[in-house]
Amino acid sequence: MDPSQVTLPPIMDMNAETITENTVAMNSGNPDARAKYVLERLVHHLHDFARETRLSTQEWTTGIEFLTAVGQTCTDVRQEFILLSDVLGLSLLVDAIDHPKPPASTEGTVLGPFHTHEAELVGPGTQISKDEAGEPLLVLCTVRDTAGRPIDGVTVDIWETDSGGFYDVQHGGDGGPDGRCVMRSDGNGAFWFKAIKPVSYPIPHDGPVGRFLKWVHRHPYRPAHMHFMFEKPGYDKLITAVYDRVDPYITSDAVFGVKDSLVVDFLPLDGDSAAAGGYLSEDERKNLSAWSILRYDFVLVSEQEAARLRDANSLEALSRLGKRMKLYDGLPVPDLD
Amino acid sequence: MDPSQVTLPPIMDMNAETITENTVAMNSGNPDARAKYVLERLVHHLHDFARETRLSTQEWTTGIEFLTAVGQTCTDVRQEFILLSDVLGLSLLVDAIDHPKPPASTEGTVLGPFHTHEAELVGPGTQISKDEAGEPLLVLCTVRDTAGRPIDGVTVDIWETDSGGFYDVQHGGDGGPDGRCVMRSDGNGAFWFKAIKPVSYPIPHDGPVGRFLKWVHRHPYRPAHMHFMFEKPGYDKLITAVYDRVDPYITSDAVFGVKDSLVVDFLPLDGDSAAAGGYLSEDERKNLSAWSILRYDFVLVSEQEAARLRDANSLEALSRLGKRMKLYDGLPVPDLD
Repeated sequence: MDPSQVTLPPIMDMNAETITENTVAMNSGNPDARAKYVLERLVHHLHDFARETRLSTQEWTTGIEFLTAVGQTCTDVRQEFILLSDVLGLSLLVDAIDHPKPPASTEGTVLGPFHTHEAELVGPGTQISKDEAGEPLLVLCTVRDTAGRPIDGVTVDIWETDSGGFYDVQHGGDGGPDGRCVMRSDGNGAFWFKAIKPVSYPIPHDGPVGRFLKWVHRHPYRPAHMHFMFEKPGYDKLITAVYDRVDPYITSDAVFGVKDSLVVDFLPLDGDSAAAGGYLSEDERKNLSAWSILRYDFVLVSEQEAARLRDANSLEALSRLGKRMKLYDGLPVPDLD
Repeated sequence: MDPSQVTLPPIMDMNAETITENTVAMNSGNPDARAKYVLERLVHHLHDFARETRLSTQEWTTGIEFLTAVGQTCTDVRQEFILLSDVLGLSLLVDAIDHPKPPASTEGTVLGPFHTHEAELVGPGTQISKDEAGEPLLVLCTVRDTAGRPIDGVTVDIWETDSGGFYDVQHGGDGGPDGRCVMRSDGNGAFWFKAIKPVSYPIPHDGPVGRFLKWVHRHPYRPAHMHFMFEKPGYDKLITAVYDRVDPYITSDAVFGVKDSLVVDFLPLDGDSAAAGGYLSEDERKNLSAWSILRYDFVLVSEQEAARLRDANSLEALSRLGKRMKLYDGLPVPDLD
C-alpha cells in the first residue's frame, strides 16, 4: 500500500480507553461491510479481554510465546491451531452456528484433523479396517430427509482409528488408507459396512496444546467414536460422529464433540440373529460372540432449510444482543439504514 | 496428565449456548485463581466474538490459516505475533494498564521489536550514530521524579534507526551496535548526546501482518521517533519514545504509539547559540546550520506510586464493569468472599 494512496482517519492521543475506537477507525478502510464488522468485534473483544483482566506485560508475553509455539508446531500433517480451537470449544461453536440443525435432524459435531481424501469408494458390506486386533463391528445405517423419506446416492465418508487409537495417517501413511472408506446410500437410503469397535484415544498432546491441557488439569482423551460425513447436492453437508455411551471419557471429551443425540450403544450381535444371518459370512458367524452391532439412522437437512435456520438464528441472537443487523450474503452486518 | 488422576466436571450436551459454560468448567482445574479468571474471560470473549459475528466455517478457516502464518513467520530475530499485537493496538493497551502514569509524569509507549542488549555504556556528549548521511542532532535531557527533584544514576537506553529507516540489527548485525547507547544521568538528572534526526520508516510488512495492513487499506509507516528506556531501582521502568510533530505519519502511526505529550519539535540549532557554544566542537560548529536540537525533560514514577495507581485503576475499571474483584499479587481475581 503506497502511503500516498491512503486516507486514514487522524488518530493520536492513545490511552487505555481511546485505543479501541482509534484501532477500529484505522481498520475501517476496507469497504467490505462484513470485513469491517468482524474486525470491529475482534478488536473490541481483544481489548475488553485485556481491560477486564488488567492483563500484565508478563501475561501478555506468555500469550505471545504460546501462540508463536502453536504456529511453529504446525506442519503439513499437523494443525496445532485447529487443535487449540478444538480444546477451547470454538470449533464446536462455529459448526453449531454455521450448520444449525432443526430438532428432527442429526446434529453435527467437530470434524477433527484426521479426515483425508484418500479413502476408497466401497460397496455395501465391506470391512473398512485391516486391524485384526480390533473387535469386529457390524454397522447398519440409513439416511433420510426431515420428512422421513430415504435419500439415495448420498456420499458417506466414514473414518475411525485402529484398535491402538491411531488413524492411518498417524502411522506415516505408507500403509495406504485403513479404517476409512466412502460409500453411497442405496434406494432405501441404507448403507452398511463392517468395521472395528472404536476406542478412546488422546489427541496429539506433545506440543503447546498438550501443555495447556496439563496446565488446566485436563486429560487429552476423546471418548470412542466413529466419524461420518454426508454430502449430496441440495442437502446441507453433515459432519458428525457417534460416541460410545459407556466410554469413561464420555463426559469429558477433550474437544467438546459429544452431544446427547449422538451417544450410541454398541450392542452384542449374538442377540440379533437376523442381522447376523443377513450380513455376516459363514466364517464370520463362527466367531459371532466377538461381534458388536451399531444401528443409526441419520437425518439430513436441505440446503434451503439450513440457510433459513441459520438466518433466523443469526437475527434472533443479534437482536438478543441488542444489535440492529441485516444479512449480507447470509452473514450479519450492521444495519445502518 | 494421567487421566485417572483427573477429576473433571461432567459435561456432555453441547450447543452454541452451553459450550461456553462447559469450556469454562473444563478449564477450571488449575487452582490458581488468577489463571482461572484470565482463562474464563478469554473463553467468554472468544465465544462471544464468534456468536456476535455468526462466524462462518470459511472465516474461521481464514483465521486459523492467518494465525498459523503469523507463527511460522517468527524467527530468532523477527516476532510477527508482537507485530500483530502492535497493529491491533493491544501492545499499547497492555503497557497503559501495566505502567499507568500520573498526570505529572512522562507517558509510556510501545517498546517495539528493535531494542537490544548490545548497546555500549557511553559518556555525555557521545555521537551514537555512525551514519554520516543522517542530519546531526543535539539531544539535551533531564530526568526527574514527580516532585521535580533530579534523579541521578538512572540507566537510560536510547535507540533510533539510521537515515534509511533501519535499525542496526536489520542490517544483519555484523557492523556492531549503531544508533543506540546506554547512558547514566548525572547529579543534576541531566544526560545529553549527539545523534541523527530520526526518520519515518515502515514496520516489516512482507509477511502476514503486512498483508493484513494492506487488506484494511493501512500503510505500514511509523512517524519519526527516538526510543528511550529508563531504569533505576525504586522507580517504575519507563519505556517511551518521542515523536516528530511535523512527520506526515504523526496521526496514523501503524502501531498506535503516539501520545500528545510525547510529540516534540526538532528545532534548528543555529538559533540556540548557547547550546551550540557549550556542546558542539569547533569542527561541528562550522556546519552549524545542518544541526537540529531536541530538548526533553522526563519524569519517572516511583514503584510504589505506579503500583498504587495500577491497583486503583484496576478496581475502578472492574467496578465500572460491574465485577466484584479483589487484587491478588497486584492482579485482579473475582472476589468470592
